Amino acid sequence: MPRALIITGEGFEDVELLYPYYRLVEAGFYVDIAAPSKGRVRGKHGYEVDATVGLDEVDPTGYDLLVLPGGRGPERARVHPRAGVVVRSFFEEGKPVAAICHGPQLLITAGVVRGRRLTSYWGIRDDLVAAGAQWVDERVVVDGNLVTARYPPDIPFWMREFMRLLERRGLLAPYPKS
Amino acid sequence: MPRALIITGEGFEDVELLYPYYRLVEAGFYVDIAAPSKGRVRGKHGYEVDATVGLDEVDPTGYDLLVLPGGRGPERARVHPRAGVVVRSFFEEGKPVAAICHGPQLLITAGVVRGRRLTSYWGIRDDLVAAGAQWVDERVVVDGNLVTARYPPDIPFWMREFMRLLERRGLLAPYPKS
Repeated sequence: MPRALIITGEGFEDVELLYPYYRLVEAGFYVDIAAPSKGRVRGKHGYEVDATVGLDEVDPTGYDLLVLPGGRGPERARVHPRAGVVVRSFFEEGKPVAAICHGPQLLITAGVVRGRRLTSYWGIRDDLVAAGAQWVDERVVVDGNLVTARYPPDIPFWMREFMRLLERRGLLAPYPKS
Repeated sequence: MPRALIITGEGFEDVELLYPYYRLVEAGFYVDIAAPSKGRVRGKHGYEVDATVGLDEVDPTGYDLLVLPGGRGPERARVHPRAGVVVRSFFEEGKPVAAICHGPQLLITAGVVRGRRLTSYWGIRDDLVAAGAQWVDERVVVDGNLVTARYPPDIPFWMREFMRLLERRGLLAPYPKS
């Protein structure tokens, strides 16, 4: 069973986390959610999820892909001393990474945006440009292992491209038995 | 392009609507949302969607499948005089129907539950049993054209089975271009 990691924190954008989470479970992935501390994390709209692993203990080499939802979670997560190292590991190994909205804040922290073509929520465009990214205003941007989008209405197009990338990488099995 | 219809109303369970909505858009469906009145409808958690069609004017024969999310939307929708007729049409034509949580309230209104094996949110079990359904406590139940589930954590398993049904019916095309 392929393994996915989602990194977030308190105040995540609920559907930007829940859509990829359920979508990957639907496709048969094992999914861990990492946050600064293990346990309940609450979204902006009041949905709660269980952070199954803390950033202190998470081992990125045990996962096949990374998802970075938006909202206020990425800013909460990026101040954890291991956040940047964990995210960078996925880039060093060329594994698929999906980020949306404020999720790319964690890409800046990881030092992986220079020269990358990507998008994000408009409010952090200047940060990404300052960090060396080629920022574009498109609903989904695919650049190698990285698939980015801007805000919730982009979700279906963001995940369509991400699932396509997983398929090209041989990570999508036929649907599992329920 | 295959066409999907979602029926809901004010106070819908946000992710029970947004997950299948985005999931069907991801797979290339055109999706209409029908509510008692055309225009903005607000979920329990504050997400807003645009009801693209009112129940007064919706023509069920123009759609290939129906989705009934839960929350308080189904009770708002079922009092509209056309709700039952519209839902019943999908059953008369044997088209795929997915319902979750309180969504099956609309199946009672449509008079289509007698003898059907299904599930729902626990709180409306007695209503479904009283209406003649064979109610079971499982995370997803497939009975012919009908796929039902209980509450948000069932969503990935509910939609996995629903997408499988759409595939068997030849309604799933290869992923469209983004």
